[in-house]
Parts: sequence; structure tokens; C-alpha cells
Amino acid sequence: MIVIMERGATREQVGDVVARVKALGLGAHLSTGEERTIIGVVGAPLPLTLDEELEIHLGVERVVRVTKKYKLSGWDFHPEKTRIRVRDVVIGGEEITIIAGPCSVESEEQTVGTARAVKAAGAKMLRGGAYKPRTSPYEFRGLGRRGLEILAAAREETGLAVITEVMTPADIEEVHAYTDVFQVGARNAQNYLLLEEVGKAGKPVMLKRGLSMQLEEWLLAAEYVMAQGNPDVILCERGIRTFEPLTRNTLDVSAVPVIQGMSHLPVFIDPSHAAGKRAWVPALSLAAIAAGADGLMIEVHPSPDHALSDGAQSLTFAEFAALTPRLAAVAEAVGRGLPMAEEMAAV
Amino acid sequence: MIVIMERGATREQVGDVVARVKALGLGAHLSTGEERTIIGVVGAPLPLTLDEELEIHLGVERVVRVTKKYKLSGWDFHPEKTRIRVRDVVIGGEEITIIAGPCSVESEEQTVGTARAVKAAGAKMLRGGAYKPRTSPYEFRGLGRRGLEILAAAREETGLAVITEVMTPADIEEVHAYTDVFQVGARNAQNYLLLEEVGKAGKPVMLKRGLSMQLEEWLLAAEYVMAQGNPDVILCERGIRTFEPLTRNTLDVSAVPVIQGMSHLPVFIDPSHAAGKRAWVPALSLAAIAAGADGLMIEVHPSPDHALSDGAQSLTFAEFAALTPRLAAVAEAVGRGLPMAEEMAAV
Amino acid sequence: MIVIMERGATREQVGDVVARVKALGLGAHLSTGEERTIIGVVGAPLPLTLDEELEIHLGVERVVRVTKKYKLSGWDFHPEKTRIRVRDVVIGGEEITIIAGPCSVESEEQTVGTARAVKAAGAKMLRGGAYKPRTSPYEFRGLGRRGLEILAAAREETGLAVITEVMTPADIEEVHAYTDVFQVGARNAQNYLLLEEVGKAGKPVMLKRGLSMQLEEWLLAAEYVMAQGNPDVILCERGIRTFEPLTRNTLDVSAVPVIQGMSHLPVFIDPSHAAGKRAWVPALSLAAIAAGADGLMIEVHPSPDHALSDGAQSLTFAEFAALTPRLAAVAEAVGRGLPMAEEMAAV
Amino acid sequence: MIVIMERGATREQVGDVVARVKALGLGAHLSTGEERTIIGVVGAPLPLTLDEELEIHLGVERVVRVTKKYKLSGWDFHPEKTRIRVRDVVIGGEEITIIAGPCSVESEEQTVGTARAVKAAGAKMLRGGAYKPRTSPYEFRGLGRRGLEILAAAREETGLAVITEVMTPADIEEVHAYTDVFQVGARNAQNYLLLEEVGKAGKPVMLKRGLSMQLEEWLLAAEYVMAQGNPDVILCERGIRTFEPLTRNTLDVSAVPVIQGMSHLPVFIDPSHAAGKRAWVPALSLAAIAAGADGLMIEVHPSPDHALSDGAQSLTFAEFAALTPRLAAVAEAVGRGLPMAEEMAAV
Repeated sequence: MIVIMERGATREQVGDVVARVKALGLGAHLSTGEERTIIGVVGAPLPLTLDEELEIHLGVERVVRVTKKYKLSGWDFHPEKTRIRVRDVVIGGEEITIIAGPCSVESEEQTVGTARAVKAAGAKMLRGGAYKPRTSPYEFRGLGRRGLEILAAAREETGLAVITEVMTPADIEEVHAYTDVFQVGARNAQNYLLLEEVGKAGKPVMLKRGLSMQLEEWLLAAEYVMAQGNPDVILCERGIRTFEPLTRNTLDVSAVPVIQGMSHLPVFIDPSHAAGKRAWVPALSLAAIAAGADGLMIEVHPSPDHALSDGAQSLTFAEFAALTPRLAAVAEAVGRGLPMAEEMAAV
Repeated sequence: MIVIMERGATREQVGDVVARVKALGLGAHLSTGEERTIIGVVGAPLPLTLDEELEIHLGVERVVRVTKKYKLSGWDFHPEKTRIRVRDVVIGGEEITIIAGPCSVESEEQTVGTARAVKAAGAKMLRGGAYKPRTSPYEFRGLGRRGLEILAAAREETGLAVITEVMTPADIEEVHAYTDVFQVGARNAQNYLLLEEVGKAGKPVMLKRGLSMQLEEWLLAAEYVMAQGNPDVILCERGIRTFEPLTRNTLDVSAVPVIQGMSHLPVFIDPSHAAGKRAWVPALSLAAIAAGADGLMIEVHPSPDHALSDGAQSLTFAEFAALTPRLAAVAEAVGRGLPMAEEMAAV
Repeated sequence: MIVIMERGATREQVGDVVARVKALGLGAHLSTGEERTIIGVVGAPLPLTLDEELEIHLGVERVVRVTKKYKLSGWDFHPEKTRIRVRDVVIGGEEITIIAGPCSVESEEQTVGTARAVKAAGAKMLRGGAYKPRTSPYEFRGLGRRGLEILAAAREETGLAVITEVMTPADIEEVHAYTDVFQVGARNAQNYLLLEEVGKAGKPVMLKRGLSMQLEEWLLAAEYVMAQGNPDVILCERGIRTFEPLTRNTLDVSAVPVIQGMSHLPVFIDPSHAAGKRAWVPALSLAAIAAGADGLMIEVHPSPDHALSDGAQSLTFAEFAALTPRLAAVAEAVGRGLPMAEEMAAV
Repeated sequence: MIVIMERGATREQVGDVVARVKALGLGAHLSTGEERTIIGVVGAPLPLTLDEELEIHLGVERVVRVTKKYKLSGWDFHPEKTRIRVRDVVIGGEEITIIAGPCSVESEEQTVGTARAVKAAGAKMLRGGAYKPRTSPYEFRGLGRRGLEILAAAREETGLAVITEVMTPADIEEVHAYTDVFQVGARNAQNYLLLEEVGKAGKPVMLKRGLSMQLEEWLLAAEYVMAQGNPDVILCERGIRTFEPLTRNTLDVSAVPVIQGMSHLPVFIDPSHAAGKRAWVPALSLAAIAAGADGLMIEVHPSPDHALSDGAQSLTFAEFAALTPRLAAVAEAVGRGLPMAEEMAAV
């Protein structure tokens, strides 16, 4: 950590900072220039808020942290990319993983039908919300336990692994009984107690990026899960909030290479929530794969016109089936695979 | 609700929309122009997601909602401004309410000392975090129940009402036993299950605005609390996330008049989290009062240099005492009062 | 246009709006519901600011525009995609166009050397700044006319068409003498007089998206050029300003499909300015092609460590040569071509 | 400047950076810690892009600039606050300056009438656009020279100093002949050649903040004007672009104290463009004065319902006259004056 003193900081002010640093059992190296003094703080471990603590001393202009705040999710102590096995799927490997399914579980017919259709088109996992966060309390909020049962039935029927959202710690046990992967939604991405509890639950967690979360904050949220002993976190970018009104959110496709430079965790893209309109979902899906994403999570519905939520952004079965071979082609072009779709193409 | 069909939408497409509307027991009035057809949907109640449902029909260009989504928080059915009594303080009345105190409760000495100091300077309520949301899991996260006991002791000592944050439903009962007002923080502003549970708990709730929450979404979050039968919601703007890096957040002072035009709920400003640096807190506090805010929540610490959190943005006792008479002067200039500070000035 | 009156708007207020509409020679159709009155405004042409004019009448709650504000750039009156011939390159056709070159023209050796290298790797056009907009007046601002001469020399040498930025109307004539395509930069994207003057100059114009420009505003800026009789506008997305600090800007890859749905103009992506770091340029370039972009503009420099501007985001010759075959593979996967690179691969 | 090398940077990489620094005639001080090496760069002047140049060397993790990029606008070399005399008005002194007038000059009657009304209510300067930047080329763009003549007539009639926008260098001479202060609009805030030309023109310049301009970039834009020998720059915050759709822009009221900490230049607020609706203009105006702004620029129109531009955000004469005494009261409460309004009140 480096403390940059103001021009004209007094000797006493410099001394105060040095004293504070030494009181913490750390070392302080002074570098006195013509214009100002700079103090290097060395030793370990540095208290996590040391920068804030030093910044408020009189005479300090700025404090620059040299070491990273995120640890478990970073490459420094985990030089291998994380691979997560979910039933017979490996997430984070050479192959792209496609998760698809309806926004909300509405009925067994709707969900099992969708599961069959997306499996046939190359999806490896089934998504579907039993507990739905909604901006307004007056909207459809999911079937709850009945929705979980339907997801399990769809898994039984198709063999697809299941991912569903958990919204509050009290639901973890119930959701755990049915799901293969917990999803923590964008609005709960900094609900730290939920992150910790889900971190203790012993199943992989997909952590969506919050609407205004910086990439470093996202990794710190993942740390909440990982610090509970759960290394199996999947990050999922789903669009951030910007000034552009035409898209529901702005897909930050750069998150893929940037996160991959910072972290060994797999990175997915949810093009449906980013776009908000189904017409744009294919282009964003293709872009995500080309950018290096480890997978996609796409909303698909048997009859989007009649969906209880997010119909405007859900693909029909036919649209999804038309998309997966194109995804496979791009995956191959960037040296990844999407085998199911190829097999399917061979049928 | 108005459905605008595309140029060239077919008679069948128009018919499909009309049929859908009628199937819901609603009326449809057609207005056929030279360029396109517009369908007015009438009847009540309109399903909350009807706009989304109609928008995805073929031939529909746009759907425009005419009635508002928020109900309990709006003026339409509650033409009186909400006033909330908390012990002997009335929030939302003629007088401005100042809440002050440390970011985190760190010790009895620190908290009781701060309570005495801020009361002497005109504050009517004491803030202090016992459970702290932190971006990183490795930071100080509050004293928990011991923090709540200390807040109660400070109330005992000074008579100040207490507000403290609750982060998860499981803590509500415990926090309820000590606090006068629940605070729901910015990161939990769309944690809907927390909002509902706190709505059932029977004490006033201060709802901070999320970092990227639109004003209408904020009112919809308040609806979650109010729909549980709790009318006593205080809104608190604390800065939104923008591209400007110098301030911790960007204070959206316009939220005050805009919300006051939409809702009868009291609106507070938290200048400390918006600014991120104590030097800017006075200017933002004065601006908030001038803009018509019903109150302020300000961080004050006996020794900000040694605070365990948010030291950089906390005022010292002296700074806070110097600020309140200026707040009183501006409050008077805009036709509001801040009586404590005046009395104090008179002493 | 639809005028939605407030609940409780008086008959007089409705009458005022109707009178205003009729005074403009337009028709007004009333639709009086139980709760409120809605006025449909018909006739053509609607004054461009009619919505604003009507919105301020007493009793009006909202005005909704039904027809689009952009005309020349939209599909309505130009159902064919625009193709622009620049020397022997066709922009906007089946094939992807790669533009590459240094941020600034620094010397003949640097520019001609880069031109040769990028041509060999598959680029079809050469970029290079002779006049450079810089955030600070104390930075390197380009070689001016000497820079233009160097670009012309590089074209002479390699046959590559040239694109360079024009910053002010007074420079148009000079730049016109040397360039094949004018570039209008992000900071000048709403410099309307420059847009009009460049629209009169008779050569194609690449219009970069402003840092906080909404997509509809971008098309309206293109209208400034096109309204002068110049149909040859290329749009170039280069990242927008958001709250994320790690990337220089946030690439809005969704702009590609969204604009393609609105407009017949070709859309390019500049991954270099979006990323700000060369490590992320390949992933963004691949994503852009997969999303359907008509071309890329990439910064390449013989020795980025010694570039006078934007070195951090410039690719080396070797990095660029390694990228183009990957771009060609993705282009092919999405049904587009990148022929030069293929030939090159064949050599 | 401080260069932070990566963990594991080689001795050669460190040596390369040191060599580069020394080749520029600067000094390099090494500080070798257990984990990494840090290089302090000393000497003056540091090249302005040195941080970017060093950042791209292999083995460099980050470069931190210690000295500020803005010079003429900062306090370091100009410890007195700038006061600008415009006719008999002093901007930046104890007294608040109110500028008011129509968005566009539409007719002599409209402009002279407005000038008389705003003068009577306490305004010291008249605003009015003769050349108007408009998002669409199909909107009203001002009367041009005739508009300038009308402004001059209004000044003749009332004695109010005049401010009007200049959009392109070619218009500077003409505008100079009529105006007292040049306005550079938000969309031209980084039109550097315009800034330089207007800097040479020898009259004060009001520089509006661009829609997505960071505060430091704003000061750097002011440097373009000041570097031409013109010290008389007034900064004017008018709202920034965010995700909130209800307000036209988000007023960044924090800009007032933050800029005042960085710069000696006067800071104004334009509440009209920030709000976009007249109902919110008073609250924002009062907040601006309370926050310490040196003045306001407010849109006023004799008949906003019939304004050719920005009618929705313009105050009527009566609304403006009702506002100024309230502004005077807040100005007094924060130790500033607004004398005209007081005199007026005394009449």
C-alpha cells in the first residue's frame, strides 16, 4: 500500500501516518521527493480497510492499494481454471454449456415440454423460477414448492440438471432438496447473508451480476460464498443498468475477458435479461460465445405470448432450435465445442 | 392502456389483440387511423403485466400504460402527506428531522458519547449499525446483538429514538426488540422477502434507494412493505451509481421534488454515503433541506480517523455542531423548522 | 400521437388541447373513458416538437409519439441495406471490413509500416489520426497536414483506402483532399454544424457513437449528415460511459442488432477504444463479428510501448496477424466472409 | 508518478521501465518489497501521457499519477477565487448571480418582454439562444443573427448583460459583436477547437458540463479556454446522463462543493435542463444556492405553452417572480446575498 502525502504536508502529518502504520505492526518506507513524501506500507496481512483508515489522516492526498481485495476467486492462489461437475455436465471446461428454460415454472406441461424441447436442441441444463423476484408486489411471484416439484419431474423425465433461484435464507433447505445448482439473482447479488448461507449449502451457486455492480465487487460477492468453503461458483453477466432505454439492460460483454483475466471462475452470459426482446437474443448469444463465455442461460417458453413473466424476451422452441447450431458453429470457430448440438445436427 | 399497432399490421393481428383483451373481461376500443390502428383497453382491474403480455403479440409496436403501477404509496388514494410518530418525534411534518450517529456501533462509550453530542446539536434520532453489509467478507461486519444493546443503552441515556439496519428476515425479531425504526439498506432495497417480513413487523421502516433503482421502482419496493399493512415507510435517497468517480455516489437531489410529486411518503437524504468525503457533507445537507427533504441522516463519529467503517465520510462532533445551525437557517428560509437547533442556539 | 389527459382533467382542458391541435391543421379524435380522456392526434406532417408542446398544457398527463423521429436512416423509406463503395472495398455487404492502423500518425515509417502489416493480415482500410481530440490541451494533438500527407503516401504504397478524423468545419476541405472516408469522433457526435458540413463534402462519413448517446439520438445525428444529401454514413459503436472502471468504456454490443433493426446503415465496432487494454481487444472483436457487425476498426502500432497516444490499447503487428484468421473463422460461422484473411491463410 | 510492478516481474522488466524513465531525463527510485517492486518517477515536467506509456511495459501492473493534470483551473497556482466582471455584474463574489431568459430568442416582443420581467424579479443577466443545438435536424434551430440583434435590443432596453451560445468557430466573430458572455453548450463541451477559438475571443466563457463528463475532464476542457490566455471561465452544471428516466438529466449538485475544492472558477447550476419539467425547477434552484453555487441560469418564457423549444421546463414570469425571493432567503441563510431581489421586495 502506498500513501501519497499532499504537497506541503508537514513533517508531523507524515509522522502521524508512520506511527499509525507501525502501531499495526507494519513497516513504513519513506520516499521524500522535492514536491511531496510518499510512504510505502509493507507487511502482511494488511487490514482490509487500511486504505480508508489512512486516507482520512490530515495531510494524506491518496492511498493506493497494491494487493487485490479478492483472494479465493483470483488467480494468485488458484492457478487452474475452476471446473464444476453438475450431474454429467462439466461447467468451465472446453465445452460450452447451454442452460435453457422458462422464466417461471407455470405448469408441469409447460416445464416438462420445454425441458424436452431444449434438450433436443442441445441444452444441458434446465432453468425455471419457482420463487420469482418481481419489481412490483402485485405481479406473479412463482409457484413455490410446487414449482420445485415440477422442476424435479422435468429432470426425472429428461435427465437435465436443474437450476433455480433462491431468494432468502429460509428457502435454502427446501430449494436444496430439489435443485442441482442454486441461482442467486441480480437483485440479491449483494444480499450477503443469503450468499453466506447458500455458500454453506453444499451445491454449486450461480451468482448473477447486480445491475450496478462493478466487476471487482462481483468477485467480492463470490468471496462471500467461497469463504464458506464452497468453491463452485459460476458467474453470470446479465446486463447492467445504463442510460440506454431500448434494451432492458446493457450487456457488458467485456465482462467475459476481463473476469477471465482476474478469476478462475466460469463466466456465463444471460442474453435474455440483457436484451429484453427476443429478436436480439440470438446476436447476443453468438457474441457471448465468441467472447469466450463458458456458457449461456437462455429463456425459452412454449408460447411466449402467454408467459406469466418475461414473455417478450423468451425464445420459442423453434427459435431456440434454430439458434443452437449457430452457437455450435461459433463455438467451434473459437476453439470450443457444443457437442449436443452437433449430435443433434447429425440426427 | 393503449396498444399501438405497427404500420401495416393486419386485420387478423388487430383481431388477436382484441380477442385477448376481451377474454380477460376488459373492453377494447378501436381507433383506426390512416397509418395505423390504436386499441384502447378499458376496464378494471387491469392485470399488472398486461402491457408485457400484449406487447409480444404480432403486429403490436408498443403498449402504453395509463394508470400507475404503484398504489399505496401514491397520492391517488392517499391525499394527505404521511406523518410518522417515532417516540416524541414526528417525521414528515413541518419540522425537519435530523438523524445522526456512527456508521457502526463500535462500543458503548463511542455510541453513547455520540448520542449525547448529536442530541446537544439538534439531532432527534440516533443511527448506528449493529449488522453491517460490507462489500467484502473480510471487513468488519458489526457487533450484532451487542450493538443493539448499546443502541438501547444510548436511547435510555439520551431519550433519542433509534434506527438501525436489518439485513435478513431471521434478524427481524431481534432487531425489533431494540430498534424504533428498521432501516433497509441500499443493497437490500429489492430484497423483496425482507421487505415483506419487515412490513409485517409493526414498526416504521426507512427504505434506502438502491444504487441503480429508478424512482418508480423505489415506490414499488415501498409497496412491498405497505402491502403488508404497514403504512409507515420513510424513503431515503443516498446517492446513485454513475460514471463520476470523485464522489462515492451521485446524490440525486431531484429525487426529493419528484418523489414528493408522486408520493405522500416522507423523503430523507443521507449526504454521507452520497459524498463519501466529509468535506462535502455540509453542502449536500444544506442542499437537501433547501430542496424540501423531510430530514437528513448524517454519519457522526467521535474520532473518524479511528472509525471501523466509513470514517472518511463521518463528521466530527464539532463539524456536526457547526452544521446544524446552518441547517436550521436554511430550513427556516424554505418555511420549515428545525427547533432543537434553534433552542440550542438560544442556550 | 396520443395525448393522455389526467384523471379529473376538465372539459375545458380537453377543449384547449383539441383547439391547439386543430389550429395546426390536424385532426383530434376523442376517446372518453370512465377514468380519463384520451386524444388521438392525426394528420401529417406532425410538427417535430408537437409532443413537447402538448405535454405542457394543463390537464395533460403524458403524450406518446407513435411515428419515429428519424427518417432517412430508418427502414421505412429505404428498405435496402446501405452498401458503400470506398475504392475497391464494399462496406455493408456480405463481407466484413477490417479497418486497422495507428491511433495517431506519428511518422511515415510508422504509418507505412503499419499499413503494410495490416494489409498483409487482411485489413482493407487504413486508419490514422492527423488531428487528434485530446482530453487535455497539454497532450500530443497530431501532425496535422503532414499527417494527412503520410496517410496518402501509405495509400499510394499499399492501395489501402484511408479514413481519418475531421474535428472542425474549417478542416474539412483539407482533410477531403487526402481521405477516402471522414471520421467524426465520439466527442463531436453531436457537433451538429460539423455533421452538416461534412454531409456536404461528398465523401462517406463514419459517425462514432457519443459516450452517452442513446441509439435513437445516434440515428438523429446521422440524419444531420444525410439531410445534406449524403447517404453514405457508417455507424461505429466504440463503448459507452458507465460505472464500470476497469474497461475504458463499456462496449454496447447490443447496439449491433438493435441498430440493424432500426436502420439500413452499416454498423461497425471499435473494440480498441471500448476495451482500453489490448488484452481484451481480441475477445471484443470476435464478439462484434458474431453479433453481426459489418466491420471493425482496430488500433495497431509497430511498437505500442512507444506510441504517442493509445498505446495501451493498440495491438502489435503479430497480435493483429494472429487475430484476423480467428475473425475470419467466426465470420464464416455466422455466414459472413473475410476474404483477405482467407487468401492470406492460403499463402 | 509511481509504477507498481506485478508480483513476479523480472529484473529485466524492472530494468526496462527504469531505462525508459531515465531516457526521458527523469529519475527513478526503486523500492523493492518482498512481494513486488515499486518505482518512483521523479523530475519535472512529467510528460502528460507518461502514465499510459509506462503502463504498457511488460511487468507493470499499474501506474499512479501523483500530480494533477489540470493546472490553470486549479488552486495550486491561483489561490484566489476568480471573480469575473460582466458590465456591472460581478460573478463569483459574495452575491449570487441569476441569469434568466427564454431557451430560444423567438421575437423581439418575447425577448424584451422576458428581459423586463426577469430584471424586475432580480435577474442580473439575460440568456437566450440565437443558434440552437437540436438533437434532430428537423427541429427549430434559432433565428441566427436576427436573434443576436434582438438580444442586443433587450440589453439596450433593460441594461441586462447578455449570454448566448456559440456552436462553431465560424460564428465566434458574429456572436462576439453582440454577446457579453459566450456560452459553450453541453454537447460541445469537448469540442476542443471551439474551446480554443472562443478562448482567443477575449470575452468570458460559460462552459456547460457535458452529459457524461467527469469533473476532472470538465476542468481539462476549461484548460483549453484558459490556455489561450482567457482566465474568465464560468462552469455550469446542467445535469448528467444516468439511468433515471423521470428527470431529463440528473442534477449533480455535489459538483458544486467538489469543483470548489478543486478549482477557483465560479460554478453555476442550470436547474431547467436538469429537471426537464418546470415543477421541479424551484426545488433544484434552492438546492443549488444552498450547496454554494455562485449563480443560476433559469429558463423563463412569457408563454411556455407556446415556446418553440424547452417549453416544458421554462418558468412563467409569475413563477420566476415567486421564486427569486425564496432564493434570496436561502442565499442569506448560507451567508450569500441576492440584492436585486431584496430591493425588489422593498419596492
